[in-house]
Amino acid sequence: MDEIKGILVPRGFRASGVKAGIKPSGGDDLAFLLAENPSAAAGTFTTNRVCAAPVKWCRGLLPREDIRGVVINSGNANAATGELGMENVRKTAERAASRIGCAPEQVLIASTGVIGHQLPMEKIERGIDDAFARLSTESEGFEAVSRAIMTTDTRPKISCHRETIDGREVTLLGIAKGAAMIGPRMATMLGFLLTDAPISACDIRGLLADAVDLSFNCLSVEGHASTNDTVLLISSTVSTEPVIPPGELASFGLMVRAACESLARQIADDGEGSTHFITVEVEGCRTVTEARAIARCVAESALVKTAIHGADPNWGRIVSAAGYAGVPFQEGELSLAINGVPVYANGSPVHFDDLALSESIRHRRPVDLHLTLQSGRESCRFWTCDLTADYVRLNADYTT
Amino acid sequence: MDEIKGILVPRGFRASGVKAGIKPSGGDDLAFLLAENPSAAAGTFTTNRVCAAPVKWCRGLLPREDIRGVVINSGNANAATGELGMENVRKTAERAASRIGCAPEQVLIASTGVIGHQLPMEKIERGIDDAFARLSTESEGFEAVSRAIMTTDTRPKISCHRETIDGREVTLLGIAKGAAMIGPRMATMLGFLLTDAPISACDIRGLLADAVDLSFNCLSVEGHASTNDTVLLISSTVSTEPVIPPGELASFGLMVRAACESLARQIADDGEGSTHFITVEVEGCRTVTEARAIARCVAESALVKTAIHGADPNWGRIVSAAGYAGVPFQEGELSLAINGVPVYANGSPVHFDDLALSESIRHRRPVDLHLTLQSGRESCRFWTCDLTADYVRLNADYTT
Repeated sequence: MDEIKGILVPRGFRASGVKAGIKPSGGDDLAFLLAENPSAAAGTFTTNRVCAAPVKWCRGLLPREDIRGVVINSGNANAATGELGMENVRKTAERAASRIGCAPEQVLIASTGVIGHQLPMEKIERGIDDAFARLSTESEGFEAVSRAIMTTDTRPKISCHRETIDGREVTLLGIAKGAAMIGPRMATMLGFLLTDAPISACDIRGLLADAVDLSFNCLSVEGHASTNDTVLLISSTVSTEPVIPPGELASFGLMVRAACESLARQIADDGEGSTHFITVEVEGCRTVTEARAIARCVAESALVKTAIHGADPNWGRIVSAAGYAGVPFQEGELSLAINGVPVYANGSPVHFDDLALSESIRHRRPVDLHLTLQSGRESCRFWTCDLTADYVRLNADYTT
Repeated sequence: MDEIKGILVPRGFRASGVKAGIKPSGGDDLAFLLAENPSAAAGTFTTNRVCAAPVKWCRGLLPREDIRGVVINSGNANAATGELGMENVRKTAERAASRIGCAPEQVLIASTGVIGHQLPMEKIERGIDDAFARLSTESEGFEAVSRAIMTTDTRPKISCHRETIDGREVTLLGIAKGAAMIGPRMATMLGFLLTDAPISACDIRGLLADAVDLSFNCLSVEGHASTNDTVLLISSTVSTEPVIPPGELASFGLMVRAACESLARQIADDGEGSTHFITVEVEGCRTVTEARAIARCVAESALVKTAIHGADPNWGRIVSAAGYAGVPFQEGELSLAINGVPVYANGSPVHFDDLALSESIRHRRPVDLHLTLQSGRESCRFWTCDLTADYVRLNADYTT
């Protein structure tokens, strides 16, 4: 399976992105995805108890085999907006459904942006009409989607995979956004996976949950779980083609996982204000859950992230972060290598060349932190970025 | 019970602080506390699986009724130092014991500073001799301790309380350090509480655990649990006076709690690079544990801390942090006030004056975040500080 540069559009979709006037900056802020036929879809969503109105809308509808459209806005999260927020989601779906010629329940909604403000419905409704008029099967339409869903992202996040499964050429296109408020408690951020592989909604749900668990749930910028996390996978051909047989599903599952991993890495790589992309690998644990708990503690430690920002091989911060993950282990079974250089082995410091390792951290991308225990055979790979003064500046002045 | 400005020295202690040459900066870095008689002591310690050699030493000894001394060094944590680290703790205790004329097991040790480096034993041993020669019952000796244990602290942290209990005048002196790597998983930081109230080691253990739970365990700078957290409470008179009867213990417990709270607040107020001291209060929960989980999530969110740094009333970040604490609640029961101004009530936004609230955040100290649920009657108060570009700069270049 190859990841392809550029955009390959799966059959059965059209897309557009427009300026609806929601973002004060005046950038593109409303995206429309149309499925030409009733399509199968499932999603994973934030587990935050305070979740956005569009998350409640999608969660109540999915999985489903008759999806016709997705409307996504940036610039406003429609989260913590009470009853009026729910009414506005329904109005958004109704407007899009009236254009498509379907029921509102066949339209999914996702939002991202500032929390606690009501959607500007006139702008949203005009934007939907405008976006519907511009829908395109060309790659430009999907590129427009990837731009219109950005908030503080510095670049669009896209992955394309194509493969032959069950004798058919199958394409999977992934589009995501996210640069902060990234803390894995299910899916984190917005992600849209479009495919022309004929897969039932029930199978999508299982494949997507597995892929998200090993990708977006292994991702953190600052550990703050968003109110709006949504990852959707939509198959355009389920109503028109024979579905992929169970024996071939695993191949498609690998495609989904590769797409999710690619997008998760792109998000960490674009973390707000970051200068280093960081991979944390934890091996030798009794369970994946324990490996992930350790990896997350390391990845979310402000002291680890600032040390890497300063190209400082201050490995004590890394092993001490591993120690407070709530995972029982003996200090004497813990080892750490940074960019392949052992710095701590079986509970004792190892002599290494400080300056050489500092240079390697300064210049290498990604920085690799490799922790090993001796409790079992399970492991986890986790992605994050460093913490910089720019992150603080960006977030000390976001709404005002 | 009054908190007293300046230092009141409890009977039965002597103290000193010296420059032993451990800190590259050349500041005071070794403190000696002497108990004139065998003294009762208990402690609370980090729950980090990677913990410092002196923590292992103290944890193995306490509670105990015959403590004679405490040696504390800054500039080196003696953590993640393997077998040699343990040998060096024993050598430190032996040197101090030889000066005092007691067994090494009657000497407690605490260290703070960089992780993963072996102690410079010649400097430590010379420093112990020097500090022993300078021991004093005067307040200057205890002030010297408060300075010698500092790392990135900008000021010493001291609390003094005096009260009459069981017909006797009782003094409690608290000295602490801490400005970063502050994340409450038991005690967080170094704290030394000295009293002339005659209390058994067993009672000390109970009173101290309760006080720490409501003070140092409700404190976070960036959530990174240290390898070296140690809080000790030592009573100098247990071997010479009748102990305080059980009926009067509660009064002394309140003194201990007041001292711990005062020191915990001083630590949050001196958080590295911080410009705002923040109090998070959570009310209306089913259990204190749930209230603390929500308070900690809010207090440790980089997005909440940067918003307050920017005087930005971006309350969506606060309610969304409450939502991912793992505590089940309904969005419609959540309310939030910032500096007394309601911004979110029963799951819906409340209109408020943005500019006035921003000004209030900019100028008020502490900033109060008050979250209310409707699940029960339990509550928690938690202390933290904001996240600034100075925190990043300080920590991007600490060891190198």
